[in-house]
Amino acid sequence: MVSAEVKPYSNIMIDTAIRVREENPDMKKHFKVIFTSAGDPVGWKDKIKGAGFTWMHVVPSVKGALRCKKAGVDVIVASGHEGGFHTSWEPVHSMILLPAVVDAVSDDHTLVCGAGGFCDGKTLAAALVLGADGAQMGTRFLSTQESDFHQIWKEGVVAAQDRGTLVARGFVGPARWLKTPRSDEHAKNTLAKSPGVFLGTPDDYTTMDMSLIQFEIESIKAVYEGDKEKALMAAGEVAQRINDMPKVNDMVQGI
Amino acid sequence: MVSAEVKPYSNIMIDTAIRVREENPDMKKHFKVIFTSAGDPVGWKDKIKGAGFTWMHVVPSVKGALRCKKAGVDVIVASGHEGGFHTSWEPVHSMILLPAVVDAVSDDHTLVCGAGGFCDGKTLAAALVLGADGAQMGTRFLSTQESDFHQIWKEGVVAAQDRGTLVARGFVGPARWLKTPRSDEHAKNTLAKSPGVFLGTPDDYTTMDMSLIQFEIESIKAVYEGDKEKALMAAGEVAQRINDMPKVNDMVQGI
Repeated sequence: MVSAEVKPYSNIMIDTAIRVREENPDMKKHFKVIFTSAGDPVGWKDKIKGAGFTWMHVVPSVKGALRCKKAGVDVIVASGHEGGFHTSWEPVHSMILLPAVVDAVSDDHTLVCGAGGFCDGKTLAAALVLGADGAQMGTRFLSTQESDFHQIWKEGVVAAQDRGTLVARGFVGPARWLKTPRSDEHAKNTLAKSPGVFLGTPDDYTTMDMSLIQFEIESIKAVYEGDKEKALMAAGEVAQRINDMPKVNDMVQGI
Repeated sequence: MVSAEVKPYSNIMIDTAIRVREENPDMKKHFKVIFTSAGDPVGWKDKIKGAGFTWMHVVPSVKGALRCKKAGVDVIVASGHEGGFHTSWEPVHSMILLPAVVDAVSDDHTLVCGAGGFCDGKTLAAALVLGADGAQMGTRFLSTQESDFHQIWKEGVVAAQDRGTLVARGFVGPARWLKTPRSDEHAKNTLAKSPGVFLGTPDDYTTMDMSLIQFEIESIKAVYEGDKEKALMAAGEVAQRINDMPKVNDMVQGI
């Protein structure tokens, strides 16, 4: 199952990725890894592995990881609820999720990658100690010189302090945002219009009040207009540990 | 500030601890450590340190850790929101909170202890890698032969699976419970009657609907009556990684 909101688009996206790769020799040379999330990977194996991709898939649970194993996913990304933007309906966090997924699926053919809370050498070391083969750092790379996110978004991550994020509705389920008056308002609206975000009970566009999604669309648009007051900016809980906007090379060398 | 609900009792509890220790030579010999939580430690230093205790205090944030440092707390317990029973109003989880607290306060005189998500050798190793001096394991010790928690509670921890806990109102703020039909009902009631649990906005007994607390009292009573259907049983998110009820010595040796 793919999240109801994106189901019609999944085949189009995957087919396009495969076609682009087949039609363009340069893409075939460089486009080696495909990264999927927000749904059940079983059923996609023949298409994705058949096209020659290394396949990474994101899961928020042991149940999801076991489906990845069944599907033949190469790298399972265990995404703790600390992560930025879309998160799962039922929260499990990296300190629990990562070792649980490693215990459930890790072997010589199946790598596990931590996500959610990782931003530096000591958190990468923690991921490795917990049995992972690596860690994904989204918010850390967002706040770099080279990142093409809007400047107010990057600055928002750098400015985030202690307890600087919250969870409210995203396009395809719960999402983690930088805490601002705007996202506080969105969280209150979420509580009223999509309470499943806080209760772990999924809803979708066929049942929910769409004014919540309209608010999100306007708020994402505001980011790209540089409108700080109306902007909703996603980030991982780890934003509070990120206090600079280095060049990528300097940041990676520092890990 | 102490949580509004327990404020009147704080002085009584601390004074009693000090008096018992002064009156009883055996207690003076063995009662060396005092463990406090759920409030601001500043203002308690003279009383607690003056009585000769080693002082441990639990905090859910860097802000709280800085108050501990100011208060002269000996061991600061950085309690991630993954932890069982009472948690903070504003969630920060161990992978972020622990290194953030270490960076903010750790020195030769101030130790930092991780809490929330720790249950075995690899999570203890992760705590140490993140800069902590140790880790607290509550749910792990709850599920041991020697633990005096009720048998259905201990069995509930062992039985907990993937995504096996949820957050709903506790006596003095948000709390983490094993996920059951009863706690699901309590979470729904919390959303209606104490929405601040999900929005990070504290309420207390002077403003909230007390039927929620009455429900909790009945549900805790049910645990001690062995009534599984009506029981509310607290546990950390890590319950899903705990699948046995060993003797304490065997468990500790295995770490």
